[in-house]
Amino acid sequence: MLERLRTGIRDVADFPKKGITFKDITPILSDPGMFHASIDLFLERSRGKKIDKIVGIDARGFLFGSTVAYELGIGFVPIRKRGKLPYKTEIAKYSLEYGEAEMEMHIDAMMAGERVVLVDDLLATGGTSAAAAALISKVGGQLLEAQFLIELEFLHGRKKLQPTPVVSFLKY
Amino acid sequence: MLERLRTGIRDVADFPKKGITFKDITPILSDPGMFHASIDLFLERSRGKKIDKIVGIDARGFLFGSTVAYELGIGFVPIRKRGKLPYKTEIAKYSLEYGEAEMEMHIDAMMAGERVVLVDDLLATGGTSAAAAALISKVGGQLLEAQFLIELEFLHGRKKLQPTPVVSFLKY
Repeated sequence: MLERLRTGIRDVADFPKKGITFKDITPILSDPGMFHASIDLFLERSRGKKIDKIVGIDARGFLFGSTVAYELGIGFVPIRKRGKLPYKTEIAKYSLEYGEAEMEMHIDAMMAGERVVLVDDLLATGGTSAAAAALISKVGGQLLEAQFLIELEFLHGRKKLQPTPVVSFLKY
Repeated sequence: MLERLRTGIRDVADFPKKGITFKDITPILSDPGMFHASIDLFLERSRGKKIDKIVGIDARGFLFGSTVAYELGIGFVPIRKRGKLPYKTEIAKYSLEYGEAEMEMHIDAMMAGERVVLVDDLLATGGTSAAAAALISKVGGQLLEAQFLIELEFLHGRKKLQPTPVVSFLKY
């Protein structure tokens, strides 16, 4: 099934800018069998573990994270770009190619010591994931593992997440 | 359960700007029982109908729409703010308080004649929902119904969606 899933990832050249090949997951989402299979990869990894919350990153992380949380019967916590969450937040910076951006998580998103898993579609340079890990730590959560559908291994993003264990299902 | 769900919606004053009270759904997402109950409202409404795709709007619409699609065993199609979708798109404009913004959907997101349901967290003025309906029509889809967890009835958003049937579960 991993090989079938791989056929659902569309390479789009020169997006978001020239020289970058974007991994488009929308063909997976629109195909019922592939969407199910992609969610099941996350579920197989997390079922039977004691997890309190799934954390997902705005916006594609919401697609996988919310469904995984629903299926596991646990809560979901969103991390969003700055200015989108309405209540009091913790803030973490991350680097973009030019300059910095910020992400936020509500300060009451989880209780101290809660065991959480980070779910996202893609691990690239690891900048946003590392910021997410910092936010989870700031609000007192215990990040057990970061899970990604796709990992671009040549960008070495998992180094930025150390010492958090990283799992990915489709590697490039 | 509707009344319990209502307790999970946090009113945040003066967000995103002074004078506006924002309906914060993150307490629903983080509570396993309430999150399940909110998804089940959408599922009860759609089960047994012949639906080919769920369409969700960036970003909070992804939280509900993707899970509903997974549970129904059908595909999910994202609508995003302009510049986020990598492949060829149709574009629809919508009005903001000052000026306009644009949303996009991939041109191959659905096949002509496919029966789709729009899922979003909140119906306010109806601007983004109407743009979503226009995009579904442009790519050849047949919009059966628009479903919202929350409706701010005093903004009369469902008028903008006519003649599409509108369903909401928590009205204010």
